[in-house]
Amino acid sequence: MSDPIAATLAALNGTDVRLVHVCAARDVTDRVGPRSFLHAGPPIDLADVPGPMRGGIIAGLLLEREAKTVEEAEAIIDAGEVSISPCHDAGAVGAMAGIVTPSTPVVVAESSRGHRTFSPLNEGLGGAMRYGSYDEGTLARLRMFGEVLAPALDEAIRHTEAPIDLVALVAEGLRRGDDCHNRLVATTAALLVALTPGLLRSLVRREDVALVVETIAGNGHFALPFAISAAKALTLAASGIPGSPIVTTMAGNGREFGIRVSGLGDRWFTVPSPLGDPVLLDGATIDDCTPTMGDSMVAETAGFGAFAMTAAPAIMSFVGGDMARAQQITRDMRKICAGTSERFLIPGEDFAGTALGIDVHRVRATGIEPVINNGLAHREPGRGRVGAGITPIPIDPFVAASRALEEAAAAQAGGAASEREDRA
Amino acid sequence: MSDPIAATLAALNGTDVRLVHVCAARDVTDRVGPRSFLHAGPPIDLADVPGPMRGGIIAGLLLEREAKTVEEAEAIIDAGEVSISPCHDAGAVGAMAGIVTPSTPVVVAESSRGHRTFSPLNEGLGGAMRYGSYDEGTLARLRMFGEVLAPALDEAIRHTEAPIDLVALVAEGLRRGDDCHNRLVATTAALLVALTPGLLRSLVRREDVALVVETIAGNGHFALPFAISAAKALTLAASGIPGSPIVTTMAGNGREFGIRVSGLGDRWFTVPSPLGDPVLLDGATIDDCTPTMGDSMVAETAGFGAFAMTAAPAIMSFVGGDMARAQQITRDMRKICAGTSERFLIPGEDFAGTALGIDVHRVRATGIEPVINNGLAHREPGRGRVGAGITPIPIDPFVAASRALEEAAAAQAGGAASEREDRA
Repeated sequence: MSDPIAATLAALNGTDVRLVHVCAARDVTDRVGPRSFLHAGPPIDLADVPGPMRGGIIAGLLLEREAKTVEEAEAIIDAGEVSISPCHDAGAVGAMAGIVTPSTPVVVAESSRGHRTFSPLNEGLGGAMRYGSYDEGTLARLRMFGEVLAPALDEAIRHTEAPIDLVALVAEGLRRGDDCHNRLVATTAALLVALTPGLLRSLVRREDVALVVETIAGNGHFALPFAISAAKALTLAASGIPGSPIVTTMAGNGREFGIRVSGLGDRWFTVPSPLGDPVLLDGATIDDCTPTMGDSMVAETAGFGAFAMTAAPAIMSFVGGDMARAQQITRDMRKICAGTSERFLIPGEDFAGTALGIDVHRVRATGIEPVINNGLAHREPGRGRVGAGITPIPIDPFVAASRALEEAAAAQAGGAASEREDRA
Repeated sequence: MSDPIAATLAALNGTDVRLVHVCAARDVTDRVGPRSFLHAGPPIDLADVPGPMRGGIIAGLLLEREAKTVEEAEAIIDAGEVSISPCHDAGAVGAMAGIVTPSTPVVVAESSRGHRTFSPLNEGLGGAMRYGSYDEGTLARLRMFGEVLAPALDEAIRHTEAPIDLVALVAEGLRRGDDCHNRLVATTAALLVALTPGLLRSLVRREDVALVVETIAGNGHFALPFAISAAKALTLAASGIPGSPIVTTMAGNGREFGIRVSGLGDRWFTVPSPLGDPVLLDGATIDDCTPTMGDSMVAETAGFGAFAMTAAPAIMSFVGGDMARAQQITRDMRKICAGTSERFLIPGEDFAGTALGIDVHRVRATGIEPVINNGLAHREPGRGRVGAGITPIPIDPFVAASRALEEAAAAQAGGAASEREDRA
């Protein structure tokens, strides 16, 4: 049997990911329905979801026209008539609340190893479903996204000569001062430059082309779902390798933060969602924050985001800290990772690859907490972003997963032994 | 009298520059005519111009239809029937050969202190007039630029709501891993994102919009004339301050490299153009290179380019070197500059401002050679780029300027003394 760690790193380093579609979620998964939605993080009961996730579900019911008013939507939720399941179980990722309904416009990516993944289009700042907004403006924007933006982008992709390589997009983003998790302004510009020629070659009407360009140009996080779709496709390729201690999922639902490990299948190891020590917007207090929520830390799982902190010094003042702290973070992450990326390189570290592949045994041995770049939502629905920070994740789930791998190995050894005994 | 150094730094730090037009050079200056062209660097006799500059003049004569064939153009030049003068004397800057003819499409910028400057649109790699190409492809592209690209960009500017701030464009470029002299790929993307909405709002035909977008998207140096127009406008604002030892011009004509100093008017101090130790393209030798040529080192004069080397670690492998060398360069440049930029900040140095305002007295006192990021042209016309490098400039002209300032001060003191004597 080949080395499971080497095989996992080979998958993370050797899988290509290309952008294939922008469409409604219903066109790419059967895990959604009029009252069946996806959400960020590990599984959670409908009754337990935090404020922004509840707000996102309300928005979803209104968007799907299952409810005409907020009150109707709340009654449906309180009657337990919505079923929810993790994005990750559908092979998808959603930032913040991560609510995906049938008509949610999503980015679809495909890997060279045959995995398909998707992630909701980023709505920009202000009122947004991913922060739990359900006001008329949020819904109108989502409808415009579904009616104009998504079909136009799909046409742009169809009219783009070479496939858009999403791993290369992230790699280029790191060369342009983005971490591709919390800072994506240069990556968004690169994406717009890549899509615009195809958009102009398509039959999309000029006023819609203008709307698309202005929407993307006005949202410095627009590239996020493209970047985390790449990351999800890479981690899907790295999943399910027997004996591999490499983390393939990190995600929060605002109550619990969970990880999954390549060699342990779909089993979640959880801890109460951390809050970290965020940089808060003016007037916000730590009590206003929903603890860590979202699937976007798939970025760190795949070797960028906070793991590429020194590639994005401009983000440090935004998430709190200076260049010395950025260097400390990338140095520390190297100690808990099994390898380095061959494609995500840090120009300011003489093009060293980023730390790649969190090894749960190394986390347990060193006690070093993996860190993520993180946005924080107000705990009330629709209040939006209240802060951002570099959040260390408690080591508990990594230690539990490390032990579970040991137990599995022992059981297998025992099983093999009894098998030998049986034969004897 | 206020401190001349403080006044010069205030001009460099306090002047705003906006993009106002893209048009033919004849529309913005009367210093060009059918056989009157501008060139890069300090003054030079027509008979002495290096290969790429001669090639640019041939291209110019063909472009202006003063000659029908290359032979006719060469005969006009050999008969001395072309007059040439420095771009800088027309308040302009031109990269590499810097040939500007009446129909050369130029970027026009205007400063908050009333200076207007211009620079030829960047033609991209391959055959280009700035490298001395005069083949049919080069001329056809220049004509397309004049007929389609320039008018379309001018319309885009007219239809852009807020003025495009070129100092902010450079500052953002530094946050996106560009030095804005040799690396401008992220800055070009930012510029395209800024211009495209206006372009789509204009009446420019869709196929021309597509041509413009593809031309810009396909040329990672497209933003260069926009960046160096900003730099030229800043140095114009900083010029002519009595007693100021701050360098306001550095430029090469391929034979001589010259500087001008704020307190010494339009007087040039020159040295034979250096070659530096460039990274050569495959197959090229140092004998193939034209020594340092072009006005683009106005970037360093205004505080970016090599002076922001640590902001652009991705360029180091291109120009030769590693991050340690980049740090050494930015450190050294601080020793010969009078101040730091308040707007050109280096994220990786905790947002420290770049070294700003080369002080000829400091160069003389420390012996530290100012460095520039530099592209090198083949010495034969039209052979294009053969290399790039970080080129130290010999201190001789800086020392000469320092002495000239001392002599001027002594003369003034003497004059004042004799004036007092006269009065007595």
